Amino acid sequence: MSRVAYVDGQYLPNRLAAVHIEDRGYQFADGVYEVLAVVRGHLVDEGPHLVRLARSLSELRIPSPMSDSALKIVMRETVRRNGVRDGIVYLQITRGVAPRDHAFPKAATPVLVVTSRRRRPTDPRIADDGIAVITIPDIRWQRCDIKSVALLPNVLGKQLAKEAGAYEAWQVDQDGRVTEGTSTNAWIVTAERIVITRQADSAILNGITRLAVSEIIRGEGYNLVERPFTVGEAKAASEAFLTSTTVDLLPVISIDRDPVGNGAPGPLSRRLLECYLAHTAAVP
Amino acid sequence: MSRVAYVDGQYLPNRLAAVHIEDRGYQFADGVYEVLAVVRGHLVDEGPHLVRLARSLSELRIPSPMSDSALKIVMRETVRRNGVRDGIVYLQITRGVAPRDHAFPKAATPVLVVTSRRRRPTDPRIADDGIAVITIPDIRWQRCDIKSVALLPNVLGKQLAKEAGAYEAWQVDQDGRVTEGTSTNAWIVTAERIVITRQADSAILNGITRLAVSEIIRGEGYNLVERPFTVGEAKAASEAFLTSTTVDLLPVISIDRDPVGNGAPGPLSRRLLECYLAHTAAVP
Repeated sequence: MSRVAYVDGQYLPNRLAAVHIEDRGYQFADGVYEVLAVVRGHLVDEGPHLVRLARSLSELRIPSPMSDSALKIVMRETVRRNGVRDGIVYLQITRGVAPRDHAFPKAATPVLVVTSRRRRPTDPRIADDGIAVITIPDIRWQRCDIKSVALLPNVLGKQLAKEAGAYEAWQVDQDGRVTEGTSTNAWIVTAERIVITRQADSAILNGITRLAVSEIIRGEGYNLVERPFTVGEAKAASEAFLTSTTVDLLPVISIDRDPVGNGAPGPLSRRLLECYLAHTAAVP
Repeated sequence: MSRVAYVDGQYLPNRLAAVHIEDRGYQFADGVYEVLAVVRGHLVDEGPHLVRLARSLSELRIPSPMSDSALKIVMRETVRRNGVRDGIVYLQITRGVAPRDHAFPKAATPVLVVTSRRRRPTDPRIADDGIAVITIPDIRWQRCDIKSVALLPNVLGKQLAKEAGAYEAWQVDQDGRVTEGTSTNAWIVTAERIVITRQADSAILNGITRLAVSEIIRGEGYNLVERPFTVGEAKAASEAFLTSTTVDLLPVISIDRDPVGNGAPGPLSRRLLECYLAHTAAVP
């Protein structure tokens, strides 16, 4: 089955899926996006994703190109046309096409692109073995709460991680505190079994998986504290893990090559992953 | 004459000028750009623009898609096909097209886009009357020295200026010092006729017009000091102005509605604009 993309009102073969060179997403990173998981054919946490999308658009004052109900139909149709049962949906909305000029154009119509692909099979050993992270300075802008496509610093950070043989780079603010990974949220578990993750301020993107895992933690009766933590605290933690729509939950077993806990995935991380997978598999 | 764009090896009618939705410029702001002025058919300061382009590419480790001499040919041909005698050339290079994944793709070929258009006639009264600027917090990332397309904060800042009835927004760092405008460099002139502009560190984009005006200032025997200046210093200055390839040099007559000097374009600003226009008109 060849891939099909929804581009500004049309379903197109992937090779023809293109946007104009004066699309403001291309020239100014003037757009937002979402990535949703598809599990057994249904869209995981679709409601929260659409709420966050609406917030991102509102912060940038980009009008929504269509109603939520219409967007749901487009996402489902894109999933269907690509024969995706387990995978992801990617959607991007930019301010539209206009002659290049920084300020908002007077007359531009937002452009919506939706794609869907099967999830590349995740090697189950990754979650079993755990992953390594490095730490890097957080050099991003001050509105990381907006899920914009201005992802260049994240790209550079992820590349640094890859070259260091790590899975992710945790970004560290000027006070030595972890903000988040380049495409994932960061968590630690103390010796007292308190789970800590940074509060959702403008320094991080409030992950939908972060929200779901927070609910699971509270629902299971564990203590969750939302506050910044330092790299030192993270290295001294009993467990650490990261979350995102595309990786679910992955135990972190080393930070800058220093082992976390006993250097193996911790029991609470494993338990939360189980719960999260059950959450994604539950038909809404 | 209908507009033509060079897109990844082909000259296309503007309406067909498109890039793939998985171009990393569109999904990650993973690309760089340059804007050159065309005056009487020649490209102003082409050499320095190409040097800066090479540096931006190098910092992001994007291979150059072609030699400088080939790029010069493409720019000239794009200018010619668009019948531009006085206007601009815009060029953008992204890391290329690849399935969406933050880290650098293993196999992607950089994509070059070149456009050219006549300069919208600048109302000469703008330079005669001078312009207003506002000040806003600088919320951008920490590598503003790279001329990347991750311009979303600049877009938001320019829009704030426009809505405040101003021409530009001067961005102010956490120490209260002006970095630069959203698409222009910022300058002040003290009562002692010392010209001050921020040094070209990672907080600003080192404008080619900034470099040319710096040379003119030194060549004309004025004192130039490259250091940060505060908003207070700027408001107390005798003169202020801004520079960029697209606006040349514009006198700033008010900052946050407070008049600069006597509230009219200053003599040094006018003199430097004259010299700069002579510089752009000189056939290389």
